[in-house]
Amino acid sequence: MGAKRNPARELAALTAREAARRIAEGALTSAELVAACLDNIAAQEETVQAWAFLDRDKAMIEAKERDRRRQRGLPLGPLHGVPVGVKDIIDVKGMPTGNGTPLDEGRRPFADATVIRRLRAAGAVILGKTVTTELAYYHPGKTRNPHDPTRTPGGSSSGSAAAVAAGMVPLALGTQTNGSVIRPASYCGVVGFKPTFGSVPRSGVLTLAPSLDQLGLFARSIEDAALAELLMGEDGADLDVRESPGPLTATALAEPPVTPALAVVKTPFWERADAATRDAFGELAAALGEAAAEVELPEVFGRGVGWLGGVMAAEMARNLGHYVDRAPAQVSEKLRELISDGRAMKAPDYLAARDMRQVLRESLGPLFQRFDVIVTPAATGEAPVGLESTGDPVFCTLWTFCGLPTLSVPLLTGPNGLPVGVQLVAPPGQDARLLRTARWLVHTLSQEADA
Amino acid sequence: MGAKRNPARELAALTAREAARRIAEGALTSAELVAACLDNIAAQEETVQAWAFLDRDKAMIEAKERDRRRQRGLPLGPLHGVPVGVKDIIDVKGMPTGNGTPLDEGRRPFADATVIRRLRAAGAVILGKTVTTELAYYHPGKTRNPHDPTRTPGGSSSGSAAAVAAGMVPLALGTQTNGSVIRPASYCGVVGFKPTFGSVPRSGVLTLAPSLDQLGLFARSIEDAALAELLMGEDGADLDVRESPGPLTATALAEPPVTPALAVVKTPFWERADAATRDAFGELAAALGEAAAEVELPEVFGRGVGWLGGVMAAEMARNLGHYVDRAPAQVSEKLRELISDGRAMKAPDYLAARDMRQVLRESLGPLFQRFDVIVTPAATGEAPVGLESTGDPVFCTLWTFCGLPTLSVPLLTGPNGLPVGVQLVAPPGQDARLLRTARWLVHTLSQEADA
Repeated sequence: MGAKRNPARELAALTAREAARRIAEGALTSAELVAACLDNIAAQEETVQAWAFLDRDKAMIEAKERDRRRQRGLPLGPLHGVPVGVKDIIDVKGMPTGNGTPLDEGRRPFADATVIRRLRAAGAVILGKTVTTELAYYHPGKTRNPHDPTRTPGGSSSGSAAAVAAGMVPLALGTQTNGSVIRPASYCGVVGFKPTFGSVPRSGVLTLAPSLDQLGLFARSIEDAALAELLMGEDGADLDVRESPGPLTATALAEPPVTPALAVVKTPFWERADAATRDAFGELAAALGEAAAEVELPEVFGRGVGWLGGVMAAEMARNLGHYVDRAPAQVSEKLRELISDGRAMKAPDYLAARDMRQVLRESLGPLFQRFDVIVTPAATGEAPVGLESTGDPVFCTLWTFCGLPTLSVPLLTGPNGLPVGVQLVAPPGQDARLLRTARWLVHTLSQEADA
Repeated sequence: MGAKRNPARELAALTAREAARRIAEGALTSAELVAACLDNIAAQEETVQAWAFLDRDKAMIEAKERDRRRQRGLPLGPLHGVPVGVKDIIDVKGMPTGNGTPLDEGRRPFADATVIRRLRAAGAVILGKTVTTELAYYHPGKTRNPHDPTRTPGGSSSGSAAAVAAGMVPLALGTQTNGSVIRPASYCGVVGFKPTFGSVPRSGVLTLAPSLDQLGLFARSIEDAALAELLMGEDGADLDVRESPGPLTATALAEPPVTPALAVVKTPFWERADAATRDAFGELAAALGEAAAEVELPEVFGRGVGWLGGVMAAEMARNLGHYVDRAPAQVSEKLRELISDGRAMKAPDYLAARDMRQVLRESLGPLFQRFDVIVTPAATGEAPVGLESTGDPVFCTLWTFCGLPTLSVPLLTGPNGLPVGVQLVAPPGQDARLLRTARWLVHTLSQEADA
C-alpha cells in the first residue's frame, strides 16, 4: 500500500484472527491494538476519509474493559478485543447513524442492530461508523481510495473497504444490494465476503430493497471472512433469515478433499471489463489448467441486470421514497430518478422481475452439478479515476440478485498497479465451501507463481 | 342434513379417524367405505354437483389395493384406505386438473402436488376432484349447498365443502386466498381448518397470490382437522414453507391445562354480519362467561381488507393475467376487473400493502398475550340464497392476510335452520393449541346446553 514501515501500522495490519489470538494469549492488549488503529486513522484519515463517526476515547475505554475482562479470566469470544468498523447504515447504540444523507444527520438509534449485538457478544470493540454513499445508493461519500486518493474506493460500503485496506481496522461490516461489498473490496484490494441471502439478519440496518439487501464483511484474509459465521442465524425479526449456512470456520480452513472444479464465467457483460482484466482472466484460467473450464451462462442471464434494477427501483421507492417527499433538494438526482422510476413501475412487472430470481437460481443447477464455484471478475477493472462515481457494479449484479454467496479476493493487479479482485461464487448455503475453495485457489496460484 | 337413514350413508358419514381405525382393525374395508361414498355421490350428485372429476372404477381399484396391503400385514399410514376429495386447482397425477376455467379443461398434470404425495403416503385414496370457482376466485362453479340447493355452498372451495357436508367423502382439501375454506365450511356446516401461512407446501397447486395462498382441510370433526399435520413441512420447492407447526394430534386431542381465555372479536366489519348472527354471538359470549371477553381490534385493522385486496389484485394480475390475455371472452367479468385493477397498481403501493401484514400481525401481540384464541364469526350469516354469488368473505380476510391459523366449527344455526360457523383464530404456529381450544369450546358449550 506504499506506506512507510512503522510499528503501529504493522500491529494494525494484523488479521482479526491473529489479533484475537495474541490478545487471548496475553501477547497483545486490546488497548494496544485499538490505539494502533487510532494512530493509523489519525495519520491517514485526512487523505482517506473513511470514517463518518469515531469516538477515540470511547473506543479506548471499551478496549480497556475488554482487557480487564481477560485479566479476570472470564470467557473470551472469538473477536475479544478486536476493533471493527461499521458501515453508517447499520445502527450502533451510542453512535449516530447518518445513513449517508444530510436528512439523517445526527440520528441516534435506540438499539444495536442484530449484527452489532452479535459482534459485541463475540468480544469485538465497535470502533466507529464508516462512510457510506447516500442511503447506500450511488451518490458518493467523501472517502478516497487508499491506494490512490484520486480514485474512488467503490461504493456503497466505501469507508469500510478503505478502512480495512488502509490498516485502520482489521474487519469492517458492509452491505450489498447490487455490488456494494464486492466492488469496493476489489477496488481497495481487500477480501470482501457477502454470504448467502437470508443468512445474516438485517434488523437495525437501513432497508433499501429487502429482496436484495445483504450484509457483508471486509477483511484481510479469507480466514477472517469466515468470521461472518458470528453474524448468521435467525433473530426473530428479519423474517427472510432462515437456517444459517454456518459454522464456516472448520470447513473454510480445511483442505478440499478433492481438487475443486472451477467454472470460469465471463457473464454476458464481458465487454464491460477492461482489456487488462480480460487478459488477466485468460491467464488465470490458463494457470488453473484442468481445474478450471470456461463456462457460458444461460442466455437468460443477460436480462438479470434489468430484473435486479426493477426490483431495486420498486423496493427503494417503497422504502426510501419518503426522503424525496420530505426534502427533494437534499436528495441526489440519481436517487430521485431511481425513486421516480420505481414509483412508475407496475406491480405485476415488479412481481415478474422478482420471480426471475428463482428462475435464474434454478437455471444454475446444472453448472453447480459440475463445478464447485464460479470464478469471475469482481469489477470491470481497477478503481476508476475520480470521486464523482463509485464505479460499475455489473459483475456483482447477477449473484446479488440470485442471493448466492460471493467473495472477492485481491489476486490481480491492474496496469496502474492497483488491485483487481477475483470473485468466487457458490450455490446458496455453500458459504463454507466457497471459502475453502478460495483458499485452495490462492494457494494453488502462489505455487504456480513459485514454480 | 335431512337425508333418510341408510347404511351407506352412515358409513360415509364416519370421521376420517374413525374410518381409518376401523379399516386398520379389519372391521371395515377401504373398498366398502369407498363404495359407500360412491353410492352417496350417485344418490346426491345430481343435486349437489360437488365433483369436477370422478373415476369410480379407479377409486375402487385403489381401495382394493389398500385392502390387499393391509391383508399382507404391511405398515399402514394414518389415513390408510380413507378416501379424500381434492379441490380442482390441486394437481393429481392421472386426473385432469381444470382449475375451474374452460381454458384449462382437460389439463393433465405431470405429477402430484406435494400435499397429494403426502396424502398417498399416509394411505389415503384420492377419490376425485371437487368443484372450484373459476381459478379459485369469485365466479361460481356448479356446486349447490347440500342443506338447500337454492343456496350457494360458498367459494372458492365449493365442491370440497359440499362433498364433506353431503357425506360423499370424510375429508377434502381446499385452499384459501381470502375466505375460501372458512366461508364454505361455515355455509355447509362442516369443520374447516386453514393452518398457519407457510406450514403446508403449495407446490403443484394453482398460484393465485403467493403472499396469501394457503391450503386447508374440510372435515367432520376437529380431531380430523388435526390430520392437516400430515401435509405440513418443507418440500424444498415452496420457499415460503418454514418449519412445521405440527405435529398437531397429541396437543389437539388433549385437555387444556387451564381454562382457555377467549377474545370475542367483532372486527370493524361487524355491521356486515346479519342480525341473527350478531345475536347468536352475543349469546355465545354470554354462555362462555368469564372464559371470554369482548375485545376490540386496533383501528388499523379496518384497512386490512383493502390491503389484502391490493396484494391479491397485484399478485393475481401477475399470475393469472395470461388467461385474460389468451381468451378474455372466456374469463369472467369479475376476474377481468381484478386483473385490470392489479395491472394498474403501482409497485410501491403493492409493497406498502404487503408490508402491512407484518404490522397487523405484530399489533395483535398484546391481544394474544392475554388470550389464547380469537372467537369471531366465520361468515356474515347463513349461506345466501342464489348461486350467482359465493357470499361475503369479509370475516376471513384479516386472518388470511395475517396468515394466522383459523378454524370454522359449525356451532350456530341461522333463522332458516342453516349452519353458521364459529371461527377461532390463533397466533402463527399455534395450530395445535387452536384445535385444542376449539375442542374445549365445543365441550363447554354442550355442557352448557345440557345444564
